[in-house]
Amino acid sequence: MSLELISQNKVAGGWLKRYRHQASSLNCDMVFAIFLPPQAEEQSVPFLYWLSGLTCTDENFTQKAGAFKAAAELGLALVCPDTSPRGTELPGEHDSYDFGSGAGFYVNATAAPWNAHYQMYSYVSEELPALVEAQFPFNGKRAISGHSMGGHGALICALKNPERYSSVSAFAPISNPTDCPWGEKALAGYLGEDRSIWQQWDASILIRRSREGLKLPLLVDQGTDDQFLAEQLKPEALAAACTSADYPLQLRMQPGYDHSYFFISSFIDDHLRFHAEHLR
Amino acid sequence: MSLELISQNKVAGGWLKRYRHQASSLNCDMVFAIFLPPQAEEQSVPFLYWLSGLTCTDENFTQKAGAFKAAAELGLALVCPDTSPRGTELPGEHDSYDFGSGAGFYVNATAAPWNAHYQMYSYVSEELPALVEAQFPFNGKRAISGHSMGGHGALICALKNPERYSSVSAFAPISNPTDCPWGEKALAGYLGEDRSIWQQWDASILIRRSREGLKLPLLVDQGTDDQFLAEQLKPEALAAACTSADYPLQLRMQPGYDHSYFFISSFIDDHLRFHAEHLR
Repeated sequence: MSLELISQNKVAGGWLKRYRHQASSLNCDMVFAIFLPPQAEEQSVPFLYWLSGLTCTDENFTQKAGAFKAAAELGLALVCPDTSPRGTELPGEHDSYDFGSGAGFYVNATAAPWNAHYQMYSYVSEELPALVEAQFPFNGKRAISGHSMGGHGALICALKNPERYSSVSAFAPISNPTDCPWGEKALAGYLGEDRSIWQQWDASILIRRSREGLKLPLLVDQGTDDQFLAEQLKPEALAAACTSADYPLQLRMQPGYDHSYFFISSFIDDHLRFHAEHLR
Repeated sequence: MSLELISQNKVAGGWLKRYRHQASSLNCDMVFAIFLPPQAEEQSVPFLYWLSGLTCTDENFTQKAGAFKAAAELGLALVCPDTSPRGTELPGEHDSYDFGSGAGFYVNATAAPWNAHYQMYSYVSEELPALVEAQFPFNGKRAISGHSMGGHGALICALKNPERYSSVSAFAPISNPTDCPWGEKALAGYLGEDRSIWQQWDASILIRRSREGLKLPLLVDQGTDDQFLAEQLKPEALAAACTSADYPLQLRMQPGYDHSYFFISSFIDDHLRFHAEHLR
């Protein structure tokens, strides 16, 4: 469980640190970033996990989201993993922007050759939290958020483990991956062609099944001018599932915003405040 | 003077737009970005020019500074030019990170072959303002800021034209370019070996000569852990010049911060508020 410090930058009164470590669930070396707010120098703090979208690494969020000032004010640590195993060189792994490297989809692959490495669900929901929560001043409370593929990942992690998180949010999540091109490609590739197995990785389906379970506060922002809205993201499926299951969704359609980090940076402070309130 | 829209993104309630245009002072096509705050839809607004550092384009600031939320609140437009002529393919132009492309140094070159294109001072202080202030809702008030080489550029523009700006600020500026390796390389390359000519492009020297002239409010932030502090940036030369000339410098040494955009993002809101106050 050794961590190799790659870089550190002071920002907003806290510290952004990048580490490399050997990820046993993924069978490769991985890099992640953690922002420690100034409060972490004297006390333990809650952790917010951020899962990024297709083609991203840990750096897109840390460089573009503009989240550190609010996180410092709120005393939130931010943990930013990468989006897939790295350095594994599987056949065809780098051929598509929406499958393989940069596109782990936060599932546990069962189909060869992906199942040897692509266990991103276990990595982001178990291995990485166990590591960082032992190494850094963690107060026992965590929340999760993400963008696009990472919004899907955040929803999946929270819906499968509601007792582990205080709240969940997403920007433009892939809300119904069993019924969109990105999701169908990823789920078929990582899990095989049996669609019944895919259902356990679909937020809208999991929410419909959650009627009796623990429900978490859920905030979703979606730009109305997002080029992927109709074909890939389908917030209407998520909204319908939440209505059906009486799940407490706050879905905000944001006029004129697209799928970029400019959209995320416009509303990230709202998400941090939302989580901070429920992490109290 | 036609502008070709390259992209637009809604952000923080305003719009970030990138344009390409033919720059007559540079004899090439150039790209710039402008952030228009929501207020610009109904009224004219003040413009803050941002000059970027070595290796940058217009995009480093727009993607990494996290400035749009405060600019939207304050009703400030932000204008972000590129850092050098582009597409010119002069001999050796792309060989160094600190000379040629990405490193125009905001001077008007007199030495061949650079003088055919490298007129960045005229571009950022005259041609681009004339263009954007005619095309977008400008209220007649402007300020200028920048980082590193762009901090030097902001200081030079303001000191040579104090009547044109309400205020000036900089992050980690190259404060005394006639006496540091980056400056000596750039000034010798663009202006020739006669050091007496270099002096008109050195902020610390210009400030010493400004005793009787109009003085602008001046804010400078400098990280104490900046790897370029001692050899290249020399804020102590700027501070001594300001003391000598009774120039109203507010120099803030920021403990632990480095030269990166994480530093800029930590204090950009302070700079925007500083300028907004003087632009009123």
